[in-house]
Amino acid sequence: MKLWEKGITIDDKIEQFTVGNDRTIDLTIAKYDLQASAAHARMLAKVGLINTDELNSLIQGLGKLTQQLSEGTLVITDEFEDIHSKIEHELILHCGEAGKKIHTARSRNDQVLVALHLYYKEHLSLLQEQAQTLFDTLLTLAEQFKDHPLPGYTHLQVAMPSSFGLWFSAYAEILIDDLILLEACKKIIDQNPLGSAAGYGSSFPIDRNFTTDELQFATLKYNVVAAQLGRGKNERTLALVLGSMANTLARFAMDICLYTSQNFGFISFPDKLTTGSSIMPHKKNPDVFELIRGKCNKIQAQYSETLLITNNLPSGYHRDFQLLKENSFKAIDDLHSVLEIFNYSIQHIHVKTTDLKKEPYQHLYTVDSINTLVANGISFREAYQRIGAQVTNDTYSPDLTKKHQHIGSKDNLCLPAIRDKMKQLTT
Amino acid sequence: MKLWEKGITIDDKIEQFTVGNDRTIDLTIAKYDLQASAAHARMLAKVGLINTDELNSLIQGLGKLTQQLSEGTLVITDEFEDIHSKIEHELILHCGEAGKKIHTARSRNDQVLVALHLYYKEHLSLLQEQAQTLFDTLLTLAEQFKDHPLPGYTHLQVAMPSSFGLWFSAYAEILIDDLILLEACKKIIDQNPLGSAAGYGSSFPIDRNFTTDELQFATLKYNVVAAQLGRGKNERTLALVLGSMANTLARFAMDICLYTSQNFGFISFPDKLTTGSSIMPHKKNPDVFELIRGKCNKIQAQYSETLLITNNLPSGYHRDFQLLKENSFKAIDDLHSVLEIFNYSIQHIHVKTTDLKKEPYQHLYTVDSINTLVANGISFREAYQRIGAQVTNDTYSPDLTKKHQHIGSKDNLCLPAIRDKMKQLTT
Amino acid sequence: MKLWEKGITIDDKIEQFTVGNDRTIDLTIAKYDLQASAAHARMLAKVGLINTDELNSLIQGLGKLTQQLSEGTLVITDEFEDIHSKIEHELILHCGEAGKKIHTARSRNDQVLVALHLYYKEHLSLLQEQAQTLFDTLLTLAEQFKDHPLPGYTHLQVAMPSSFGLWFSAYAEILIDDLILLEACKKIIDQNPLGSAAGYGSSFPIDRNFTTDELQFATLKYNVVAAQLGRGKNERTLALVLGSMANTLARFAMDICLYTSQNFGFISFPDKLTTGSSIMPHKKNPDVFELIRGKCNKIQAQYSETLLITNNLPSGYHRDFQLLKENSFKAIDDLHSVLEIFNYSIQHIHVKTTDLKKEPYQHLYTVDSINTLVANGISFREAYQRIGAQVTNDTYSPDLTKKHQHIGSKDNLCLPAIRDKMKQLTT
Amino acid sequence: MKLWEKGITIDDKIEQFTVGNDRTIDLTIAKYDLQASAAHARMLAKVGLINTDELNSLIQGLGKLTQQLSEGTLVITDEFEDIHSKIEHELILHCGEAGKKIHTARSRNDQVLVALHLYYKEHLSLLQEQAQTLFDTLLTLAEQFKDHPLPGYTHLQVAMPSSFGLWFSAYAEILIDDLILLEACKKIIDQNPLGSAAGYGSSFPIDRNFTTDELQFATLKYNVVAAQLGRGKNERTLALVLGSMANTLARFAMDICLYTSQNFGFISFPDKLTTGSSIMPHKKNPDVFELIRGKCNKIQAQYSETLLITNNLPSGYHRDFQLLKENSFKAIDDLHSVLEIFNYSIQHIHVKTTDLKKEPYQHLYTVDSINTLVANGISFREAYQRIGAQVTNDTYSPDLTKKHQHIGSKDNLCLPAIRDKMKQLTT
Repeated sequence: MKLWEKGITIDDKIEQFTVGNDRTIDLTIAKYDLQASAAHARMLAKVGLINTDELNSLIQGLGKLTQQLSEGTLVITDEFEDIHSKIEHELILHCGEAGKKIHTARSRNDQVLVALHLYYKEHLSLLQEQAQTLFDTLLTLAEQFKDHPLPGYTHLQVAMPSSFGLWFSAYAEILIDDLILLEACKKIIDQNPLGSAAGYGSSFPIDRNFTTDELQFATLKYNVVAAQLGRGKNERTLALVLGSMANTLARFAMDICLYTSQNFGFISFPDKLTTGSSIMPHKKNPDVFELIRGKCNKIQAQYSETLLITNNLPSGYHRDFQLLKENSFKAIDDLHSVLEIFNYSIQHIHVKTTDLKKEPYQHLYTVDSINTLVANGISFREAYQRIGAQVTNDTYSPDLTKKHQHIGSKDNLCLPAIRDKMKQLTT
Repeated sequence: MKLWEKGITIDDKIEQFTVGNDRTIDLTIAKYDLQASAAHARMLAKVGLINTDELNSLIQGLGKLTQQLSEGTLVITDEFEDIHSKIEHELILHCGEAGKKIHTARSRNDQVLVALHLYYKEHLSLLQEQAQTLFDTLLTLAEQFKDHPLPGYTHLQVAMPSSFGLWFSAYAEILIDDLILLEACKKIIDQNPLGSAAGYGSSFPIDRNFTTDELQFATLKYNVVAAQLGRGKNERTLALVLGSMANTLARFAMDICLYTSQNFGFISFPDKLTTGSSIMPHKKNPDVFELIRGKCNKIQAQYSETLLITNNLPSGYHRDFQLLKENSFKAIDDLHSVLEIFNYSIQHIHVKTTDLKKEPYQHLYTVDSINTLVANGISFREAYQRIGAQVTNDTYSPDLTKKHQHIGSKDNLCLPAIRDKMKQLTT
Repeated sequence: MKLWEKGITIDDKIEQFTVGNDRTIDLTIAKYDLQASAAHARMLAKVGLINTDELNSLIQGLGKLTQQLSEGTLVITDEFEDIHSKIEHELILHCGEAGKKIHTARSRNDQVLVALHLYYKEHLSLLQEQAQTLFDTLLTLAEQFKDHPLPGYTHLQVAMPSSFGLWFSAYAEILIDDLILLEACKKIIDQNPLGSAAGYGSSFPIDRNFTTDELQFATLKYNVVAAQLGRGKNERTLALVLGSMANTLARFAMDICLYTSQNFGFISFPDKLTTGSSIMPHKKNPDVFELIRGKCNKIQAQYSETLLITNNLPSGYHRDFQLLKENSFKAIDDLHSVLEIFNYSIQHIHVKTTDLKKEPYQHLYTVDSINTLVANGISFREAYQRIGAQVTNDTYSPDLTKKHQHIGSKDNLCLPAIRDKMKQLTT
Repeated sequence: MKLWEKGITIDDKIEQFTVGNDRTIDLTIAKYDLQASAAHARMLAKVGLINTDELNSLIQGLGKLTQQLSEGTLVITDEFEDIHSKIEHELILHCGEAGKKIHTARSRNDQVLVALHLYYKEHLSLLQEQAQTLFDTLLTLAEQFKDHPLPGYTHLQVAMPSSFGLWFSAYAEILIDDLILLEACKKIIDQNPLGSAAGYGSSFPIDRNFTTDELQFATLKYNVVAAQLGRGKNERTLALVLGSMANTLARFAMDICLYTSQNFGFISFPDKLTTGSSIMPHKKNPDVFELIRGKCNKIQAQYSETLLITNNLPSGYHRDFQLLKENSFKAIDDLHSVLEIFNYSIQHIHVKTTDLKKEPYQHLYTVDSINTLVANGISFREAYQRIGAQVTNDTYSPDLTKKHQHIGSKDNLCLPAIRDKMKQLTT
């Protein structure tokens, strides 16, 4: 049974093609559809489109479905094309005439859209928390390993001295940028679209402020056409915001994979975080971080999909938008697990000791040597030439006496200032 | 002459390959490099790395170059690989020994990065202003055409009644979402990276708070490694934020191109905004809006370029990042001109009168007819069936009496509320 | 049990993170792994690494597994991380010592790669057949509707007369281009990678020509490093080739969605190929073609995912590549169903009659009118000016006498020539 | 003066917005427009639309313009919007009435399209030659360094022994795959679109077979709608084919950048192919290969731009397509220079000697050790366990006696077979 069915049989293959795996995917947003349906019912009662008894019956019916959902017994069988038809059907069974009124003054587009807003909002907050947990972990590691030297590279060439403290806290500080974008995305999502119906509102005397308060949205998407233009656009924004965090984690994972290579050998991980080979018995591969990198790259690719599906389509709903759900949901799930696994795994890092005074690292100190000359009154550019000549003539010996003490450098990490920046963002 | 040249001749082709058109591109950021160089010089004086005379000489030299730049006489000739070498060379010519000190405690990576932050920051503000201007234009048009009917479509099929008021203000409200992202991007960019040197800081006793204040950054990117991780990441964020606005404008332009088609015929534009054909003398094509759409799609594609260039590269500077400049700058320029042309052209729109009571539009009113039945006590789902039967039997006649008066619907646009939402964003 | 497990327990979450849904995905390539394992076993016997009894036992074991697979009873339970471990385990159970020899001189990378080559090869051929079927359908429709007029548009503006014959056969001819690319992809895939082991070959005296013949590959990827470089690269090529066909079908579907809009009204589809609305009882939406468009756009987006996952990774296998399987397989499945549904649905098209002599179509004939003047000795550019003046003065009346008879124009479709071009491609 | 101008002034900004830098870009295809115009003129004479004198005059006029072009004196001044208007204007100046006839039976869309086909076709052949030159270079290097050991990595972890011979010839063999795609693209491009006019043909009695022969196209795009559907689609195909080669070169460049890192130290390049740092006097950065990698990634990103600009647009020309030219041309130029520079630079590689018997490389030989046990009758899986135990107990010592002699392995590169595969492709 479908809401729009008017007695015409539909070929099974077409049915399969159009419904796809929506029945499974829709379970992800069932909880939010139930919430929004309850708010909608309360609003219908408030404006007099249903009476109190009808409201009570609907709320009871929705409550029952919510319980079934949490118990895992709410299943969308093949007679329903989606969660929304299923819920309306159950309400008609449970509430009779009142059930036939639940869809007054709303459209399925409406339902899907508000459920998506509620779902995204909740998960953006969860992702925010996870990112903050990882941020804390990284600052703890930065503090713990602040004096452990690490060669700094540019162009993958030995450049200047760095440290594990700098490395860990760099990614922590970059996460703040990602969270600035996430905050913006939450703000965009935190606008109630309910009441836009099929995208053009309706003549029913609905109270959109009421549902906005009920569902705890910060504000409304006022214009009903604007609300529906959010379909696809929201997923685009979500993809880029998840992608931003994924970008940071992917790059971090790339560093980790490189640093675990025997040719760098700066870090290692316990056996349970590595995997072996079916042919080479000596292997301990950093699969966990490779999969973090790969999954983060997949999340970054989600932007293209949202764009290609929606691009150049004129305004108004198109069925194509249905296809955005599957991978948008998957990107959210994947980022949750990536953040959890990253936060867990990074705490098991083993930082090895690397002697930066030895080959191939001793040239890390040429700029420190220039500094010594500059302190003696030689101009920077001349000092640069002199040290350069020593390197060429192989007479250079590193100056290991220098501290790097300016703001944000290896011997002055400013972790409290970074922590403060994060705090200001989230309060 | 290059800063890093040590007397070795370089094959011309390699030279051409590595320098590319940087000399032209760099003129875009020359102004910002001069600003940042002055702030850096003042900081060097403050911490005692140069004396007052040297500072004055450098400031004078930088002033002279700034004037040449504004007069268009600052040219990067072939002996210099970029604007940064050119400026240092000129300062050495002008200031002698002091010129050789300007590069103390900074790196070219540093210079490029801070110049890019300053450049992006200024242009994000300009784009914000332009978007607000367009927002105002659209609200004015919405007010002006609030009673002009427009068919609303879903699936490109006639759906429910809409209006030009709804249409114009929908895109205005969507622009607010774009500006929420732009604000986030500004916040990310408004962090001083200067002092990060080659990405690992240095042992020079520089004062990064001082340059932060001098250059009016809201805060610093504290961690020097984080500062350099911004290279590429900033361009990624910029691309997606410009792309968000471009996405809105592209979709708006698609509507316009469709609505100017003779088959819709809802709007037209004066001849000066249309172009002809070399073969068909009757043509008046909406090239301006097609080019807006196309340029906006190009801007949206910029994200892929930034990502593919930077993806999976370990931390630390790589020369690849140099290639991000050209098209990032172009995307900014293009969005400036798109916003200007859009704002100009849309004001010349001619809204035609469409009679929605006639074929093929009369079914727009079926939901209003359902409402009448619902008001008479019939449940929504039954009313839906009855009107559906009328449509099938061809006995349906539209109910034209209904107003749509809930928040954000066609007869209640809530323009002041939308205006307020924008105001809260920007104050 | 995993092949590489050496007695170390692994945290369950990590397990879940690393294995993901590989157990399900791997069933897709189980058939091909069994084929390749049999070929590998025969080769091991040929070069003397196993004896005839061992070979017979292995072949019998593989046969049993093949039967289980076809009966749907081959399940990868949680103790196995993938199909490859499962098969080796079963062979050890079934064949004892011989089972422990099946992995001699190969690696899991090897197994996966050769199974993917076999899988892609088979499905490329199936897609080719489906595309040819659609090609035939389109040519049949072109013939059937060759005299049905259709307005031709440029810039979405009425341009010149076209026909349904032109429209159907245009997409048919474009499919030939897609099949040229598909042929190229088949050629690339049709190279045996088996024997590359972990990507560096081995010291075992294997006979790669033998397995090439056994598995009916046209040639080998000789270089073992090249073979492994195909991982990711093959998926990239596959994505763009599937994407090319998807591109054609998406654009065709866009035309269809537009032409079913009441504002064009050129075509319609029977009810079983349209869907309704939960709120608007008059709706018959072309969801089938919208979903074709959307799914084709998803397929086109697959390229980005393959690229982002593999980009900038140095040579040699990385675990990230594992993630390419899921969506590459899905793109193949989706294109199969899109082709089937398209071919079925397009045959149910109802072509309506549109009178091109009437508003808004009469200007379609201006170039034909120019032709009349040119035939009378007026230069093209002057004739253009004269007809243009008539249009401006509203004195233009269409010249309906002209036929378009040059090659490939509406009254000379050259369907046999197009059919020939297809034939030459495939023989 | 524009062909479609009908006495209406156009605001300068709009002019700038619509024309953009087409005047510069168009010079790239001027040569091909002149070729196609000559063929078109000859065809007009053949079918009697112009007489012999007119033809001679036009051919002479086109010859003069061709000469101006080769001398660099053909400039598109501001009065012309593109090369096509300019040429028609010059022909009218030179040939009088005959000039006004050149545009008979064609459209500007037509002209652009055929010029693009001719341009792409020529450059695809040039790219093919360059790729073959690089292929030869790589095989020469493979032969030269066939016995130079190189550690093989999987997961960036030391895996199994490889060699420079394997490494060089792997990328050579992969280039064959790229050329298979390039061949397919050439085949797609090698179809004459001339005669499609604005995309719907015309009633003029043109002879498209004649122009096909004149312009040496292998066949025609028969259907005129199909011909115009190639606009955008051709650029998409081109982008992915150039991108395929770029993908190979980018990955190769990544290997090179990694192997020049001091932590690998497998190779180096002469000073003229490295660049220095403005702050670190010891630096010799592999900028050339980083820029190759970056430029190749840009080329790979071109696909997204072509797709986003064209996606979901209904059939028929749209002005957006104009925007595809700039970056498609740039991708071609960039790939030419990348291939030239790569071929030049790689010949200057200095292969260092790495002792694989020492830390951290000795585990490269575990599979060879397993082979020894297998040769003694132990099953592979048991041998794997034994050697694995030796590694764990730190009692493993490498078996350096084994050769890798199967097809395509390090001691049997099969360079002649790879060379043959290339030859079969190109003959």
